[in-house]
Amino acid sequence: MSAPQPGTLYGVGVGPGDPELLTLKAVRILAAAPVIAYFAKRGRPGHARRIAGDHFNPDADVLRFEYPLTTERNAGVPEYRAVLDTFYDKTARELDINLRQGQDVAVLCEGDPFLYGSFILIYDRLRNANTVIVPGITSMGGCWSEAQTPMTRGNDVLTVLPGTLDENALAQRLAATDAAVIMKVGRNLPKIRNALARAGAAERALYVERGTQAGARVQPLGEMTETPAPYFSLILVPGTRPPA
Amino acid sequence: MSAPQPGTLYGVGVGPGDPELLTLKAVRILAAAPVIAYFAKRGRPGHARRIAGDHFNPDADVLRFEYPLTTERNAGVPEYRAVLDTFYDKTARELDINLRQGQDVAVLCEGDPFLYGSFILIYDRLRNANTVIVPGITSMGGCWSEAQTPMTRGNDVLTVLPGTLDENALAQRLAATDAAVIMKVGRNLPKIRNALARAGAAERALYVERGTQAGARVQPLGEMTETPAPYFSLILVPGTRPPA
Repeated sequence: MSAPQPGTLYGVGVGPGDPELLTLKAVRILAAAPVIAYFAKRGRPGHARRIAGDHFNPDADVLRFEYPLTTERNAGVPEYRAVLDTFYDKTARELDINLRQGQDVAVLCEGDPFLYGSFILIYDRLRNANTVIVPGITSMGGCWSEAQTPMTRGNDVLTVLPGTLDENALAQRLAATDAAVIMKVGRNLPKIRNALARAGAAERALYVERGTQAGARVQPLGEMTETPAPYFSLILVPGTRPPA
Repeated sequence: MSAPQPGTLYGVGVGPGDPELLTLKAVRILAAAPVIAYFAKRGRPGHARRIAGDHFNPDADVLRFEYPLTTERNAGVPEYRAVLDTFYDKTARELDINLRQGQDVAVLCEGDPFLYGSFILIYDRLRNANTVIVPGITSMGGCWSEAQTPMTRGNDVLTVLPGTLDENALAQRLAATDAAVIMKVGRNLPKIRNALARAGAAERALYVERGTQAGARVQPLGEMTETPAPYFSLILVPGTRPPA
């Protein structure tokens, strides 16, 4: 018997949280996929699954991959990276077995698969697979829509910054851009505040939490007093304003 | 008789070109909207309408707004700006009449409404309206999915640059970022090439045309020889690569 035609690997963006922000293409692929995989934190139902679960092919094999640690705190620590590498190696091997058996595999990706997504680490390990990427609404797009804040006009420059950068790097990059999105806020919030103030951007900065989801919250950053900020949060610095 | 409850203004992102990249929310709103408006270039059917037209409420009043000039060449010229201002003033007034009559109005937006969108110019003029923004897949998201190119990992910085910046500004910003997207390529292509070379980013730059649409094209920028590039094109500079 010859080997079956390998299946297709779908990286399916499921958007920022509101299940209605799935695309028609994502819905079609999930309704037909014989294997659907998603990542979840230990002990949690899984954010991507909650967003897209209503559209799963009812006969699909659903594979849950649990992150080996419950915190993002240690991402820079070598031992933690080794644990994650092992986790992604194992996950990719399991998906590859399904693909080689001729089954299409859809992997759910919060936001967009290729913008800071865990899916990239699977994609890197399965470069020989036949792959289709379904773009998703990004978390930042969900947040600026929730905040009703136009981000860029005309010739504005937009910079997307991880809040993990040091204060000098943040301040320099904020001073050199028109608009900015700062991700990975969490315990970086006090440092981010200082950088925004140094760049003269503190007054127009907005704090957005759980954009497009239940309990969404939008406020000027100056009015946000809790520290650290929760995981589903980011900071928007809108670009140039309209002429008065 | 008292005035009716004003209608809601919907800014509906319709994504980068593939009609299947509409969101479920966009489809629901377009199927119910009594008034649907879109922009088009003179003599053209309208890109946004082509993407979303199959989902229009069949009983909707469909309003077409034709840009007063057929070229983007003159965006920086004061007279052109005055013509455009008058055009957006008039468009906003017409939409406002419908809203005041109690009708919901859905305005189609290519890509995402708040990222370099014409819709922002309507939104600025109708700040008193009850507004809902439906985020859309951006053209850049469509392009990096088409190109199967992961853009940002971990702590990468992403910078979105208009190709209209001068060469020094482009080169400086490209040198200071991990990943970049360059929009508004067109006749700026030779300048963009120089800036990428100065920033040491020319070799990993990709040229993407008509991402997610029929006739999509992806190639290393070095192999793209035509000048100027067409309107639906952009350049991707992917961020850090996986450890070898």
